[in-house]
Amino acid sequence: MRIGNFYTRYWFSAEAGAIWSDGATLQGWLDVEATLAEAQADLGLIPASAALRIRACARAELLDIEAIEKQIGYAQHPFVPLLKAFCAVCGEEAGRYVHWGATTQNIFDTAQALQLRATTALLRRDLEAIRSKLGELARAHVDTVQAGRTHGQHALPITFGFKAASWKDELDRHVDRLDHVAGSAFVARFGGAVGSYAAMAGRGHDVERRVAEKLLLSAPHVGGRNDFDRQAELLTLFGLIVSSVERIATDLLFLQRSEIGEISEHHYEGRYGSSTMAQKRNPTGAQKVLGLCRIARARVPLVLEMMVREDEGDSVATNVNDYTTPEYCVLAVSATSGLAALLQSIRIDVGAMARNVALTGGLISAESVMMSLAEFLGRDHAHEVVYQAARAVAEEGIDFQTALLRHEQVREVALKLDLPRLIDPANYVGDARSIVERVAGAEQQTDNPRRRLA
Amino acid sequence: MRIGNFYTRYWFSAEAGAIWSDGATLQGWLDVEATLAEAQADLGLIPASAALRIRACARAELLDIEAIEKQIGYAQHPFVPLLKAFCAVCGEEAGRYVHWGATTQNIFDTAQALQLRATTALLRRDLEAIRSKLGELARAHVDTVQAGRTHGQHALPITFGFKAASWKDELDRHVDRLDHVAGSAFVARFGGAVGSYAAMAGRGHDVERRVAEKLLLSAPHVGGRNDFDRQAELLTLFGLIVSSVERIATDLLFLQRSEIGEISEHHYEGRYGSSTMAQKRNPTGAQKVLGLCRIARARVPLVLEMMVREDEGDSVATNVNDYTTPEYCVLAVSATSGLAALLQSIRIDVGAMARNVALTGGLISAESVMMSLAEFLGRDHAHEVVYQAARAVAEEGIDFQTALLRHEQVREVALKLDLPRLIDPANYVGDARSIVERVAGAEQQTDNPRRRLA
Amino acid sequence: MRIGNFYTRYWFSAEAGAIWSDGATLQGWLDVEATLAEAQADLGLIPASAALRIRACARAELLDIEAIEKQIGYAQHPFVPLLKAFCAVCGEEAGRYVHWGATTQNIFDTAQALQLRATTALLRRDLEAIRSKLGELARAHVDTVQAGRTHGQHALPITFGFKAASWKDELDRHVDRLDHVAGSAFVARFGGAVGSYAAMAGRGHDVERRVAEKLLLSAPHVGGRNDFDRQAELLTLFGLIVSSVERIATDLLFLQRSEIGEISEHHYEGRYGSSTMAQKRNPTGAQKVLGLCRIARARVPLVLEMMVREDEGDSVATNVNDYTTPEYCVLAVSATSGLAALLQSIRIDVGAMARNVALTGGLISAESVMMSLAEFLGRDHAHEVVYQAARAVAEEGIDFQTALLRHEQVREVALKLDLPRLIDPANYVGDARSIVERVAGAEQQTDNPRRRLA
Amino acid sequence: MRIGNFYTRYWFSAEAGAIWSDGATLQGWLDVEATLAEAQADLGLIPASAALRIRACARAELLDIEAIEKQIGYAQHPFVPLLKAFCAVCGEEAGRYVHWGATTQNIFDTAQALQLRATTALLRRDLEAIRSKLGELARAHVDTVQAGRTHGQHALPITFGFKAASWKDELDRHVDRLDHVAGSAFVARFGGAVGSYAAMAGRGHDVERRVAEKLLLSAPHVGGRNDFDRQAELLTLFGLIVSSVERIATDLLFLQRSEIGEISEHHYEGRYGSSTMAQKRNPTGAQKVLGLCRIARARVPLVLEMMVREDEGDSVATNVNDYTTPEYCVLAVSATSGLAALLQSIRIDVGAMARNVALTGGLISAESVMMSLAEFLGRDHAHEVVYQAARAVAEEGIDFQTALLRHEQVREVALKLDLPRLIDPANYVGDARSIVERVAGAEQQTDNPRRRLA
Repeated sequence: MRIGNFYTRYWFSAEAGAIWSDGATLQGWLDVEATLAEAQADLGLIPASAALRIRACARAELLDIEAIEKQIGYAQHPFVPLLKAFCAVCGEEAGRYVHWGATTQNIFDTAQALQLRATTALLRRDLEAIRSKLGELARAHVDTVQAGRTHGQHALPITFGFKAASWKDELDRHVDRLDHVAGSAFVARFGGAVGSYAAMAGRGHDVERRVAEKLLLSAPHVGGRNDFDRQAELLTLFGLIVSSVERIATDLLFLQRSEIGEISEHHYEGRYGSSTMAQKRNPTGAQKVLGLCRIARARVPLVLEMMVREDEGDSVATNVNDYTTPEYCVLAVSATSGLAALLQSIRIDVGAMARNVALTGGLISAESVMMSLAEFLGRDHAHEVVYQAARAVAEEGIDFQTALLRHEQVREVALKLDLPRLIDPANYVGDARSIVERVAGAEQQTDNPRRRLA
Repeated sequence: MRIGNFYTRYWFSAEAGAIWSDGATLQGWLDVEATLAEAQADLGLIPASAALRIRACARAELLDIEAIEKQIGYAQHPFVPLLKAFCAVCGEEAGRYVHWGATTQNIFDTAQALQLRATTALLRRDLEAIRSKLGELARAHVDTVQAGRTHGQHALPITFGFKAASWKDELDRHVDRLDHVAGSAFVARFGGAVGSYAAMAGRGHDVERRVAEKLLLSAPHVGGRNDFDRQAELLTLFGLIVSSVERIATDLLFLQRSEIGEISEHHYEGRYGSSTMAQKRNPTGAQKVLGLCRIARARVPLVLEMMVREDEGDSVATNVNDYTTPEYCVLAVSATSGLAALLQSIRIDVGAMARNVALTGGLISAESVMMSLAEFLGRDHAHEVVYQAARAVAEEGIDFQTALLRHEQVREVALKLDLPRLIDPANYVGDARSIVERVAGAEQQTDNPRRRLA
Repeated sequence: MRIGNFYTRYWFSAEAGAIWSDGATLQGWLDVEATLAEAQADLGLIPASAALRIRACARAELLDIEAIEKQIGYAQHPFVPLLKAFCAVCGEEAGRYVHWGATTQNIFDTAQALQLRATTALLRRDLEAIRSKLGELARAHVDTVQAGRTHGQHALPITFGFKAASWKDELDRHVDRLDHVAGSAFVARFGGAVGSYAAMAGRGHDVERRVAEKLLLSAPHVGGRNDFDRQAELLTLFGLIVSSVERIATDLLFLQRSEIGEISEHHYEGRYGSSTMAQKRNPTGAQKVLGLCRIARARVPLVLEMMVREDEGDSVATNVNDYTTPEYCVLAVSATSGLAALLQSIRIDVGAMARNVALTGGLISAESVMMSLAEFLGRDHAHEVVYQAARAVAEEGIDFQTALLRHEQVREVALKLDLPRLIDPANYVGDARSIVERVAGAEQQTDNPRRRLA
Repeated sequence: MRIGNFYTRYWFSAEAGAIWSDGATLQGWLDVEATLAEAQADLGLIPASAALRIRACARAELLDIEAIEKQIGYAQHPFVPLLKAFCAVCGEEAGRYVHWGATTQNIFDTAQALQLRATTALLRRDLEAIRSKLGELARAHVDTVQAGRTHGQHALPITFGFKAASWKDELDRHVDRLDHVAGSAFVARFGGAVGSYAAMAGRGHDVERRVAEKLLLSAPHVGGRNDFDRQAELLTLFGLIVSSVERIATDLLFLQRSEIGEISEHHYEGRYGSSTMAQKRNPTGAQKVLGLCRIARARVPLVLEMMVREDEGDSVATNVNDYTTPEYCVLAVSATSGLAALLQSIRIDVGAMARNVALTGGLISAESVMMSLAEFLGRDHAHEVVYQAARAVAEEGIDFQTALLRHEQVREVALKLDLPRLIDPANYVGDARSIVERVAGAEQQTDNPRRRLA
């Protein structure tokens, strides 16, 4: 698994790539074989000396991976040639006990559980970095007024701190989810060919639990190889996380638009936006993340499809897994680590935020006026009055306050309302401050999940 | 939402359809408006008399849904016409306080949380029915030997009880997941236009919690309307469940194949398989479930895409939600209830299972022979001997035992091996019995989750 | 098929809904049965009198569709109950010859071909309306300078006419594609149960061709019912068209952004943007189209999956088709007709376009300067000079021309360059005018395809 | 692009991999740059000597691809570092004219058109191989009776020749489609930064056409870089082809089932099915193809999503393209070449086909009996009689003929019917023979498309 090519490779997490590299995968299989032998020796199924020897020989560098790649093509089996080579390395005596009572898929599934666990750790670490940065931004910009937008139109004023806290809040939940799922997603599997432990003389379940203990994995109720729900749960969670990353990066892209300019990526000397437009300062970091997210999300249907397996084993599904899961894991980590890097790189333009929030001449605070009017007119009637005033602003180009004062009901209560105060966006950011405190306050240490619904 | 048409409607769960019907949706919105008013009255934001009146008027039958449908088209807004009509019903005094400080999306999101909860309850009930039936089948067929198959080829013998237990085990985990997710997925939302509670005079979070208490929902940290991760987590879990249903139904389809015949659906008089082939006994039940599963699964990418929302509100995403979530929920429940019904309908043909497991003349027990030989020859060498014997059976058409005895190493130990015993499938079902006990034993009451990894 | 619910129904094309309604579907089946009988009578397979009677009775209103819906549920067959009812209507004599030699799927496939053809006609008509409007916009705004944007950043100036022509050009190709695919996508199928025409006494292929002639359909080489490539080709083309619609609507949404304001939808009195924000003028039309496009696109994987059918017939796939194809067709037409309506509704703000293109103080014409400098310095060197000047503008806030003149090489040739002319966006729209002429010139009549690559 | 890893690499087409390798991609870009220079020299835009020099230097081996990969990461631009390195190779004089008036995306799009064309040629060649083999099988097995199956149940008898012809017929249409789409899908693009040819001094369209002529590509109406419909049309067609491949491979998998055994893959010595079950002869070839098809199909949603591009350029979409299109092309060719290889490898077991078709004791010919009875009883009545008889066979285990003769109406006409003849499957294969002739007759040369709808 060497993902990408010469002009896309910098998009991808090298750390995630290392987890799923050819060498690491091969070593993972050998580690699982060795641990199986040790567990079986512990339980007296095979000689202890064999287990020792198998462990000692379980080193990828003792095998010729290129030769094995060729033999796999000929054998049309992903493991038998490697197994034969490994037995040869172990020698006559110990080689007799290699892969005892196991089937290929047991080795693959158990080794993949370890790779999934390592991938999960990277993802979690990236989420922590993102949350930490978002918390910082939220606190720093607790009072930075910004246009809140819905459906692409100015809605109400918010603060940038509120926005950052909203993003963090979503990611907080994902960390909780990761921690919860991690408690059961990683399983050792030694049920053999069809999951019945038939080749382990009645000791299969014990062997499986012993291996699980050694590798800090869980042990299943059933040794089958055709349920994929645990992995699928984890991988769809990756999809949820990637979608949250995509949501944040979408905003980070928009806020860099030429006409918006509220944030920008760091455009150091030597960074280029175009081979022909020398002025271009492209939001490459955000776009990189967005592309990765789309590509990653497109794997989720395959994750579900992989759960649908015929009978007791189905290598259509496991083939799809062999290709898809490594690629998808690298994509997911690349997306989250890309967002972490992007957040480190951005610069906030408080002036642009102020400029934009003022753009509509107070219309962004229409609700503020409406709710105050509602005390006198009722909510529905107040809404209608402000609706007409806003139409006049749009159609006739007049000032919002002027338009409001055309209405007799407004004039009647105008003194009590203090329209200029109501229209000032800074006065209508609601509970933005307390939300920042709640989500990103100093006591909200990251890496401290289980804070659901205080 | 009236799903399907005149020739597909029987596929769909009427109960799920009722949850998402026009009438129920409209009533749900009114209920939420009334609860909001009550919460606000409790906190002194609006008069108690107004809340009483709003509750009394919150009855769908008081509104002309057809007229509202037309007005919605003209207003190009899904709620304003209804709100105006509802205010009119409430009358001048109470109408002033309807929808106080809220935005449309608050009402929609909170009402949908209630519908999602009701949907989840149906799904869970169906899963219980399926698990109960599978447990029964597992116990009844704890000793019914059947061919275990991998990659479409006979692999090892299993029992049908083991197969049923394996299915149940996967669904057990889904019930745990449903219960876990249900603890946080259903949220009341009253943050108003952009989630800052700006229109509730500093009491928004309290209002929200009060509504949540009344409706037995959770309350969020942030009042935003643009995070969809909770719903998406639940809906992707539906996708996982549907995929497990699809896995089981795939087997139930295959096992009905003319050449397999190990199970069959109940073909009562008046059930037809074809308009031209009078003999046809089609596995319509299984195919119906499989079609529903595929259709349902295809919604999962939209679920993830719905999480990606711009700014503080994005009605592209909420439009997709308005259409997709009701449809998807009905599809998911229809798939699970379809499987529950299918399992009630099937008949097991033990004779066919016995006939099929004998089909390969003992080759299905090749591993049994291999593992016994391995005691003498080592595993790898034993595998090679049996591989050669199996090739001879396939190429020359000779008997497995004869083929084995061609090998001197086999002949040397043949007396110790008792080949006929090793080759008898009934002697090589591994831990099938204890697995059935573990997963579906009498003490494994259904509706009693949290049994993970004993 | 009554798509949507009370608050979403106005999104959907009523015309497309009518094509796929219960009544129209049932009538379509009866029409096909009657045409089959006529073709068989023509060829002497059944009595002419029977065919006459069958045609006369082939009226949906003679059948009790609600009763049939119930019977279908009991029979678990989508057609047999209807067939029995229809035979009864035809009476003893003619009823004997109804559905002669056919299977259910033949009727369904042939009737669906007619519905697909009618859907295609609607889509094509909508595309014509869109192209016509885009041509009009292109000609009207042939000189309206606008910011060209790439990666969300100002790139080069364009004209709005150029943009409209670019959209039209893409849709022109889709009309060509529709016309090409329509030549072979609509097929009559009368191969019977497995496609071998076994029940038509050697005349099946003739019957099929006769039916095809009568219905203006094509006739296949093979009578099978398990190839779906023709339908899938058409339906994926719908997906391509919908994606183009989505591309255009995405721009139409962005250009309405508060900060951009280059276009706006018609916000008539009584149109509402929000139940709480009275000022809101939401781009509901564009968002409606975008939501429909996303929902529609999500069906394409099912279209491909429907092609994968087991053996000679597979009702998992046809079930998916029975549900998906009608829904998808209505969605696709709703998206295109939604875009047609949206384009009628928008207003262009030429002033906003002028304001935006001036936003970067000439940096949008950086390439213009670079290419002129390139005559003297070489392209690569010129790019570097302008890159440094643009950095100075961004970092130091100085004027572009000033920044350029800091470079000695620029000063040396400045007199020859006429920087103010180079920097004026109106002077750097390239071939925008001739492109408009080529794609949307007066002689480019719409509804006149086959203009590929002049 | 080095797809796969050490244990999956043999799944993938090395030829397709070569088209999309790093070296070939880099060389493709250089070729396009050189051709651009030549076209511009032809038209007098740049000196002829520069074009000659640029062509001479356009050799990938003159560039340090590893250094460029690193620089791309720093520049965050996929082409600028390479362009600078290439200018340096070309030297001071010629380097001035490299990339004249072009933008990165022009080079990428044009070079990718060439790669797509080469990919299409491979796919077409594989389809020819498959069609040729299917034609051969169809002719060889024109009279090999086999069970026709629908919904997994025996339906009517067919011949294996008919089945092979049905598959071929579908692929014939795909070759037509490929040839048609190839006529317009491959386009040269030199519209520059936003598609307006602004940097080519009014000669851009001419340059583009000149490049197109030299590379045997088409030239567009508009120089834009943000329409992707041509590529998407081609790539969705790949998806249709892959789905047909998947349909065929699904049958080829099923027909190898232990209980069916009608075909088998070549299991040469040294091919292994399992690391523990020595008897296993897995349908690895079919499963490999099926896995590839699923993985490939999952890219189609991304293809459509890539069409949705903002403004005049959108590198989120082009990033997705840079990653997805190469991978997808290799997957698609691997699927088709995998099927071609699989068909070469399979062995037909005529005996198993005969055994299976006889399995139902004649029920498979129920329609044959029904249609003959229909002459006397009418179709609907005859269907009911046979339905009852078939029920008796299923419920009571009696013989089909006996069950039929229980009915008085059958007994009355039994002499005229010759039931044994009607029940013999070999007598009820319909027009299987003429279909084979039509689709796969000797005169149906492959590589001779345009045979639609004789």
